[in-house]
Amino acid sequence: MELINAFPILFFSWFLLASAERSNYIVHMDKSLMPKAFSSHHYWYSSTLEAIKSVGLTSLDAHNPSPKLVYTYDHAFHGFSAVMSKDELEVLKKSPGFLTAYPDGIVTLDTTHTYKFLSLNTATGIWPASEYGKDVIIGVVDTGIWPESPSFKDDGMTEIPSRWKGICQAGEEFNSSLCNKKLIGARYFNQGVREANPGVTITLNSARDDLGHGTHVASTAAGNYVDGVSFFGYAPGTARGVAPRARLAVYKVLWSEGNLESDALAGIDQAVADGVDILSISLSYRRYGLYEDPIAIAAFGATEKGILVSTSAGNRGPDFATLYKGIPWAVVVASGTVDRWFSGTLTLGNGLSITGWSLFPARATVRNLLLTYNETLSACNSTELLSEAPQGGIIICNQSDETTEFFLLWQYLSESNVRAAIVITESTRILRSNTFPFPGVVITPRDAKDVINYASTSTDPRATMDFQQTILGTDPRPAPAVSGSSSRGPARSYPGILKPDIMAPGVLILAANNPHSSVASIAKNIFLTSNYTLMSGTSMACPHISGIAALLKAAHPDWSPAAIKSAMMTTANPLDNTQKPIKDMGYGYQDATPLGIGAGQVDPNRALDPGLIYDATTLDYVNLVCAMNLTREITRSIIRSSYNCSNPSSDLNYPSFIALYDIQEKRTTLSQKFRRTVTNVGNGAATYKVQVKSPKDSTIKVSPETLVFQKKYEKQSYSLTIRYRSYSGPVSVTNDGSLIWVEENGKHTVRSPIVVTQRVFEE
Amino acid sequence: MELINAFPILFFSWFLLASAERSNYIVHMDKSLMPKAFSSHHYWYSSTLEAIKSVGLTSLDAHNPSPKLVYTYDHAFHGFSAVMSKDELEVLKKSPGFLTAYPDGIVTLDTTHTYKFLSLNTATGIWPASEYGKDVIIGVVDTGIWPESPSFKDDGMTEIPSRWKGICQAGEEFNSSLCNKKLIGARYFNQGVREANPGVTITLNSARDDLGHGTHVASTAAGNYVDGVSFFGYAPGTARGVAPRARLAVYKVLWSEGNLESDALAGIDQAVADGVDILSISLSYRRYGLYEDPIAIAAFGATEKGILVSTSAGNRGPDFATLYKGIPWAVVVASGTVDRWFSGTLTLGNGLSITGWSLFPARATVRNLLLTYNETLSACNSTELLSEAPQGGIIICNQSDETTEFFLLWQYLSESNVRAAIVITESTRILRSNTFPFPGVVITPRDAKDVINYASTSTDPRATMDFQQTILGTDPRPAPAVSGSSSRGPARSYPGILKPDIMAPGVLILAANNPHSSVASIAKNIFLTSNYTLMSGTSMACPHISGIAALLKAAHPDWSPAAIKSAMMTTANPLDNTQKPIKDMGYGYQDATPLGIGAGQVDPNRALDPGLIYDATTLDYVNLVCAMNLTREITRSIIRSSYNCSNPSSDLNYPSFIALYDIQEKRTTLSQKFRRTVTNVGNGAATYKVQVKSPKDSTIKVSPETLVFQKKYEKQSYSLTIRYRSYSGPVSVTNDGSLIWVEENGKHTVRSPIVVTQRVFEE
Repeated sequence: MELINAFPILFFSWFLLASAERSNYIVHMDKSLMPKAFSSHHYWYSSTLEAIKSVGLTSLDAHNPSPKLVYTYDHAFHGFSAVMSKDELEVLKKSPGFLTAYPDGIVTLDTTHTYKFLSLNTATGIWPASEYGKDVIIGVVDTGIWPESPSFKDDGMTEIPSRWKGICQAGEEFNSSLCNKKLIGARYFNQGVREANPGVTITLNSARDDLGHGTHVASTAAGNYVDGVSFFGYAPGTARGVAPRARLAVYKVLWSEGNLESDALAGIDQAVADGVDILSISLSYRRYGLYEDPIAIAAFGATEKGILVSTSAGNRGPDFATLYKGIPWAVVVASGTVDRWFSGTLTLGNGLSITGWSLFPARATVRNLLLTYNETLSACNSTELLSEAPQGGIIICNQSDETTEFFLLWQYLSESNVRAAIVITESTRILRSNTFPFPGVVITPRDAKDVINYASTSTDPRATMDFQQTILGTDPRPAPAVSGSSSRGPARSYPGILKPDIMAPGVLILAANNPHSSVASIAKNIFLTSNYTLMSGTSMACPHISGIAALLKAAHPDWSPAAIKSAMMTTANPLDNTQKPIKDMGYGYQDATPLGIGAGQVDPNRALDPGLIYDATTLDYVNLVCAMNLTREITRSIIRSSYNCSNPSSDLNYPSFIALYDIQEKRTTLSQKFRRTVTNVGNGAATYKVQVKSPKDSTIKVSPETLVFQKKYEKQSYSLTIRYRSYSGPVSVTNDGSLIWVEENGKHTVRSPIVVTQRVFEE
Repeated sequence: MELINAFPILFFSWFLLASAERSNYIVHMDKSLMPKAFSSHHYWYSSTLEAIKSVGLTSLDAHNPSPKLVYTYDHAFHGFSAVMSKDELEVLKKSPGFLTAYPDGIVTLDTTHTYKFLSLNTATGIWPASEYGKDVIIGVVDTGIWPESPSFKDDGMTEIPSRWKGICQAGEEFNSSLCNKKLIGARYFNQGVREANPGVTITLNSARDDLGHGTHVASTAAGNYVDGVSFFGYAPGTARGVAPRARLAVYKVLWSEGNLESDALAGIDQAVADGVDILSISLSYRRYGLYEDPIAIAAFGATEKGILVSTSAGNRGPDFATLYKGIPWAVVVASGTVDRWFSGTLTLGNGLSITGWSLFPARATVRNLLLTYNETLSACNSTELLSEAPQGGIIICNQSDETTEFFLLWQYLSESNVRAAIVITESTRILRSNTFPFPGVVITPRDAKDVINYASTSTDPRATMDFQQTILGTDPRPAPAVSGSSSRGPARSYPGILKPDIMAPGVLILAANNPHSSVASIAKNIFLTSNYTLMSGTSMACPHISGIAALLKAAHPDWSPAAIKSAMMTTANPLDNTQKPIKDMGYGYQDATPLGIGAGQVDPNRALDPGLIYDATTLDYVNLVCAMNLTREITRSIIRSSYNCSNPSSDLNYPSFIALYDIQEKRTTLSQKFRRTVTNVGNGAATYKVQVKSPKDSTIKVSPETLVFQKKYEKQSYSLTIRYRSYSGPVSVTNDGSLIWVEENGKHTVRSPIVVTQRVFEE
């Protein structure tokens, strides 16, 4: 990938005359067809565009500039992006080597107790075994970085290995000396945004993170140790990334001015060229086919080079098939809760103490104040109403019916003369809200009964609230639970592989931040900043997996990306901390399915020693793509010219199983056979016996039922057949089960989720 | 002092029947007249009261209980306090041993960069020389203590010496195990408050500090080292007391329910009995005569036992003669500023940066927002007006005329939609306010010119504010300056000795606090707490002197209280950090006079080695009291029975000089001769020559002008004569100068302030 400089004057006139007619396209080329005369792909692509120019020049657009090259790509995939008209695109399509082209798309954005929740510890397991991810390089493609954050200090880091080819690109408010042995690379890409918004001024034209998202993600994956951090007193402790001794290289591709796939692609392409080991991509986009998904394509190129790509599932849940990234060669990460609760302890004058939710971002004093419950007042739905509330006291606001917008409720309270509020709600969204601009505690209707009773019957009802309390391990709800917003499979862009793959902590994660961005508010017009902040989403889950992948890479340098993914998936935990199935916040805390959590919650220490792995090579992915019934050009735009489709197979050697049925009028049937090969990565001989939990209405047959390995690295194959029959008719049902290979007289269990669900029909 | 238990039932009926007629009196007794039959003072005093009972019983008050003993005192002074009627008091006056009695009075209340500002350091000087005040016990008579504050941890403290006789008194929410090797004693006294408010419920009936004042004072004097403290991000650093290895014994005598002299007296009396070395009394009261000032009297008893008493000058300044405590045997402390500024940096879009004042107690984000100046809007004097201000921007509020109450201004802003305010004012009160509930910066009209000009002329005026900034050494004003509120001499209760004696830091001092008390607010109804808080007043200056006295006591265990006071005073600095005379905030930063600052700002390292000292014994104080023309009884109530008035002298050997003239119609003249004796505490022989700076309209004659000492501890005397003549007529003028004994070929200079001012006539 090289950045092509724009010519501002030309650019400006182009904007004036023809902006509406032209747009940026990402163009895939078959590099194997590059004429030998060209010394590099760059010259070939620019000369291809030049050739269009003369063709496209008519009297009508004589003032138009030629199509303008934005980026050329050569590492993660082959091609370029360029601004051109539709006519010019038509001409381009006839050029030698052209595969596919599509308009540049818009990318959207989707720590520190979590290491403990994930059982990472200094005594045993993957941290010491991997030397904390020593020397592994994680590339973060995001909003850039706040390099001065103490999370990116390089205390304790060794010299940068010579294999690293990246740079520390200088830019606005970003000196090239800001990188160090922790943050070893920083680059930025915004030609796509510039083309999409002609004349735009980029606010911070450098790798500096003006949004905070990239800083958060990077510090979650591999931040150094930082003492004494908190979010306004909540979640206090020592921050550290999942892989505190891994290195970071950041690629800023998201901008306040816009987020475009062409820029994201440029960042990924460069990261591959620079030599990252892990790619952490917490971005989401909405592409219905793998072939039109440039990031899926770039991830193929990265995986081919041995780079594990970890990416967020997206935050479009909880509905069925809200996940777009069906990328078979990437790890797609769902977001779960943490066993941490931010409180809000309410103590009544009668001694009763209730642990509610609060993230009021300051040490408010609410001690022994008059507590008022009045049914009319409890609507708390206007400034006028609240003006009747007793001055200086605590009011009870009943939001069980959720009629008042939460932020309006706080605003009314801020304008009132009350000192604090008790908010009653059942909504998990409000019960875990991090918008908390007024002193108060959010409690459930069940807890509220005692409070209302006391407030109504005591002659002098009083209450005290304590803020900035962080409760670990005893979240009122079991953890992890999959977040309601985490996108659910099956994946839109390719449903044949179960996605998401795995779940990691992604709800209210504390990590580093742009210290200038507003992360909390008080009253109605006061906005606050913090060096460390809580963020939620699959964007926050993804870097946990990136960091764990880095630990695995450090511990097992010879493992392929597929092996690392398999190790994480087959050792993931489908149970929560009460040893019951992980629950789904999006469905009233019913049991989650693998469409929400994939294989379950990642368990890094178990992943270090998975027993068996499901490996896959680039050729396996090629064969899968070849079986997707795509055109030759689209296929080549994914797998590129080095491969052919001599052996298509949709049965990828994957550590999970998904079978899709078509909904029929009366009964739905399905029969699907999967073949798998597992590699023994345990020490020496081992025998595994199968243990199957069949999905409802299904029978599962595994053959053979025992796998005997004589030595390490030996491979054994088996087949699994799902037969599904349901009389429920045209009703969408997802049933799930599991296959577990249990080591005899050993400690390893190798688990794969099995899902039977309906095929998605595009709306 | 012993606490006498009240009898609740009796007490209650007394309250119902006769509360208006009875009150608490503090009674001084001549203990030398105690009949030998009594085994203790306590029995004598209670039997004296019993005797009144039968006398006072008439048919009219048959239901009245007998006079009730509240406290007996025996250490700092001799006597008791008791509730009785005026009739009963008249009877009491005839009892043997009775000296004086007066109604119980009401007491009112008047750290951590300051150690640096005072040049305390670990390398040289008084800290290492005194081993940081090792083993000296400071008694703090105040609002009690928050024992769990990390400032009172005993890390690094040695075992408590056996001479200590104090206890850790258990009480409400105060376990007797809460004391340790730092906090070695805690007691509480509220019988006085109980008598004054019959039936009252004491909120926290123990030594626990519900107000925070005592905790603040104690930690300023002798708090242990605590890392990472701040006031909402301001004044961050490691807290430590002035004498971090001294011990603390606290006596809670001030209560949410009331503050009475009888309780304060009980605390002081007990502190003397327990064996404190230094008494720190940050209380003020309004007594016009020394003889009716029980704390002055108790301080005499303490001083007699070798205890240095440090007390606050009061916060009634800046007017002439607003200081009441003319206590010759105590150190009376004025309050000065610190070279620290809390900012409020305002950066305009044109790059101009202005360091204003801000103590907004959170990390507000105000970056690159629209800046609006509109003359009408700038009044900022109503919610309606501000509703017209641009939403989300910064508004300029011109308060040069101070028409709007500062707290109302903030309230209007909180209710508006603006994000931040620039407040223009010249008022030092507002420019250093710690009430700061809305994001903003306070600037002077001079700085405002550039801001208004930019806001009025730029096409897109923008500004950024940075909060939580602490600027050291470069306060816009020189430091120290005497605080406007610090009480000014001459002293009402005895003007013949210059008071205050000395100045110490007392403006916005950071020290420990009751962690539950509200110390800041945001918007209009949100109140915040902090473990460490900023407080201002002579109450905060006093414990600085107490701590320094503890350091001197540790370094010079043989020095008398007078010697310690002299060492501090003669080495105090009359200049500020620009080497110009210390200024007076109360008088528009004109030069301060000794009536505001005494000898000047304390300089602890110089005080360690003062060269010469002006010593005084108890007998010297007795002779002074005997010269005050008081009645025999009143005199004895101060100096008690052990002394007689055989040698009265108003010329106390004091390290400062004050001459008072009576204002006359035309010309005012004065001639006063002082005799002084200095003791050489330098090492060996030394010769000192006098250097005099005469007050205006005065001539000063010193004889001899050279003092030659052959050896250490040798004494030499001199006389100083002031002749003053002024034609200004009936106009109050204060003129000051100084006497300095300068060591020849040595480093010592021994400075005394000289003041000529008018005698105060009581209103």
